[in-house]
Amino acid sequence: MAEAPPRAGAIAPGATIGILGGGQLARMLAMAGARLGLKSHVYAPDPQSPAFDVCALSTVAAYEDEAALAAFADSVALVTYEFENVPARSASLLAEHCLVRPGAEALAASQDRLVEKEFLSGLGIATAPFMSVEDESGLARAVAQLGRPSVLKTRRFGYDGKGQALLRDGSDLADAFRSLGGAQAILEGFIAFEKEISVIAARTPDGGFAAYDVCENVHEHHILSVSVAPAAVAPATAEAAVAITRRIAEALDYVGVIAVEMFVTREDGQERLRVNEIAPRVHNSGHWTLDGAATSQFEQHMRAICGWPLGATGRIGGAVEMRNLIGEAAAAWAQILADPDAKLHLYGKAEMRAGRKMGHVTRVIGHSAAKTAAPTLDKAR
Amino acid sequence: MAEAPPRAGAIAPGATIGILGGGQLARMLAMAGARLGLKSHVYAPDPQSPAFDVCALSTVAAYEDEAALAAFADSVALVTYEFENVPARSASLLAEHCLVRPGAEALAASQDRLVEKEFLSGLGIATAPFMSVEDESGLARAVAQLGRPSVLKTRRFGYDGKGQALLRDGSDLADAFRSLGGAQAILEGFIAFEKEISVIAARTPDGGFAAYDVCENVHEHHILSVSVAPAAVAPATAEAAVAITRRIAEALDYVGVIAVEMFVTREDGQERLRVNEIAPRVHNSGHWTLDGAATSQFEQHMRAICGWPLGATGRIGGAVEMRNLIGEAAAAWAQILADPDAKLHLYGKAEMRAGRKMGHVTRVIGHSAAKTAAPTLDKAR
Repeated sequence: MAEAPPRAGAIAPGATIGILGGGQLARMLAMAGARLGLKSHVYAPDPQSPAFDVCALSTVAAYEDEAALAAFADSVALVTYEFENVPARSASLLAEHCLVRPGAEALAASQDRLVEKEFLSGLGIATAPFMSVEDESGLARAVAQLGRPSVLKTRRFGYDGKGQALLRDGSDLADAFRSLGGAQAILEGFIAFEKEISVIAARTPDGGFAAYDVCENVHEHHILSVSVAPAAVAPATAEAAVAITRRIAEALDYVGVIAVEMFVTREDGQERLRVNEIAPRVHNSGHWTLDGAATSQFEQHMRAICGWPLGATGRIGGAVEMRNLIGEAAAAWAQILADPDAKLHLYGKAEMRAGRKMGHVTRVIGHSAAKTAAPTLDKAR
Repeated sequence: MAEAPPRAGAIAPGATIGILGGGQLARMLAMAGARLGLKSHVYAPDPQSPAFDVCALSTVAAYEDEAALAAFADSVALVTYEFENVPARSASLLAEHCLVRPGAEALAASQDRLVEKEFLSGLGIATAPFMSVEDESGLARAVAQLGRPSVLKTRRFGYDGKGQALLRDGSDLADAFRSLGGAQAILEGFIAFEKEISVIAARTPDGGFAAYDVCENVHEHHILSVSVAPAAVAPATAEAAVAITRRIAEALDYVGVIAVEMFVTREDGQERLRVNEIAPRVHNSGHWTLDGAATSQFEQHMRAICGWPLGATGRIGGAVEMRNLIGEAAAAWAQILADPDAKLHLYGKAEMRAGRKMGHVTRVIGHSAAKTAAPTLDKAR
């Protein structure tokens, strides 16, 4: 789909960038933009949104509020977003008023797990085996086909493990289906993976593309816990992961930073990749770039959506570890500040709730000293 | 002078830091604070102040508005500032309501060139030779004593070469005195220096101290043009410069980042130091730390004034060059963005005026590659 270009053309420093969403990703985008002389207008429904602390303009309104969306779009040079669940109607309304980057295709391909997997399959990119599930009998057919263990997921609005049910031997299918509250679903065959990795890359309107080092991710309770860059995979695997990401970005005529999560499996002794998820935005597993790469993913996104040259993506030290501070982990801020190798990032969230991403901490190995071998995840604190 | 401690004690993330002044230094302080989970309340008289784009709270009021100052001080955990010319009466009013860091002694010692030089002399620290000038006949006496060339400067409110007159052979003393508009003045003997350097360091409330690599500065038209870290001086000279800075900070019971500008002269074949100026704040010649050091001077200032541990000050790559973008130089933003070795910083100022600091650009040599020799200033672009 072509972008509506009512205000196309070069965007210069001094321009105002609209950001839908007011969480930590929007906050870090706004700060990266400010460093480049861009103003941010943050649009979010929650008046306590962390991004409101660092933006020039703010709108507190629902994502479905058409009058507020129109006024927002008219006040900015372009709109971007920090989350893929922007309502399709809101996205197209915004696109009538100003540039929206990444575009509607990227949103469509990432909002619905079935559409996403069909899109990937259409590009010849391996995923977990999957089947659409409309009802209980459909679930029974899918389980017969894909076996157990397998994972039943809602097609839409799932994140951090929400809207998922693991089907083991003996799991009751009716219970599992009911647990999704009647939502349209997809069954995914279980992947016995060795590692989870992700590629953070950026693409410009004229097709420029740059990827960061592939990073390796560890999830706990379905929430990202630690990322390490570079991932301990074969060079050919890392190259293949970047090539897959580029193919996806080109197929979507993508503009901005994109994140692609993949599983690394071992088949016949070789590492193989299966794409798990596409995120049309900056991504938690790219936070290490703030301290460990020449250009952060947030600056890179701003450069891409403004049509500016992409920044250098090389690491600026040795390996980098990024650890999320989830819930009470953020209470250790004073110890983290006392560690000369640690860089603390806190998101300004008032309430420290269990499971809530409060901040993150990065450690770059061998910043000024000789390069050190990549830390293994075991050693990572 | 002891700090008034109505809200002493540890400051935690989530606290609001008051910043007097709304220019680029306040803007970069606010962003550094936000990264650490601090909110900023910026107080400045100009509604177009660049720092307003990145702060949680703002007050537009004059620096002498006592009601506004009191309300500001009551809304924050502590107040800091981006410029040394905070009116003494405003500073003491703020100190009745909350912590002010750095404290009143630092302001007193840096607001008045005569007081500053007498303070330094009292510590046994070399400066340019100086004499107080109250009137025209006093100027004649001072010139007879210190000779020509020498520099007549207002005692207060001088910056970037404003309020100065160079006295050469044949300069008319009456003209020079009148050019200062009758302000109290000081005559400084001319220093034939080889280099200008500065030390950026930080001190905590409990006496913790950390300095960055000494950097070398080049001024054009009295405005800082380029800084390079590390400075090309003998190791003993760099050590002496840091020791002088520490002595100054300790004598002032200083809290926060301090900058000390010095001249390097050669006497009997040896490098000697003479202190030119103390700035009780983050400093333009420390901007290289944003991209070239483990902790930026802005984060370091926030850590120090909050009573947190100081961050590591080591360089994270090779040598670093920081070049100011003054006036139209900022129009080259697109070329700078296309240079993979450059990091662009723009301050969000609406109007590109001659002599106005619009931004800066840093280049770190050998970030990810082998270390490179320090660039000479000649080669520096």
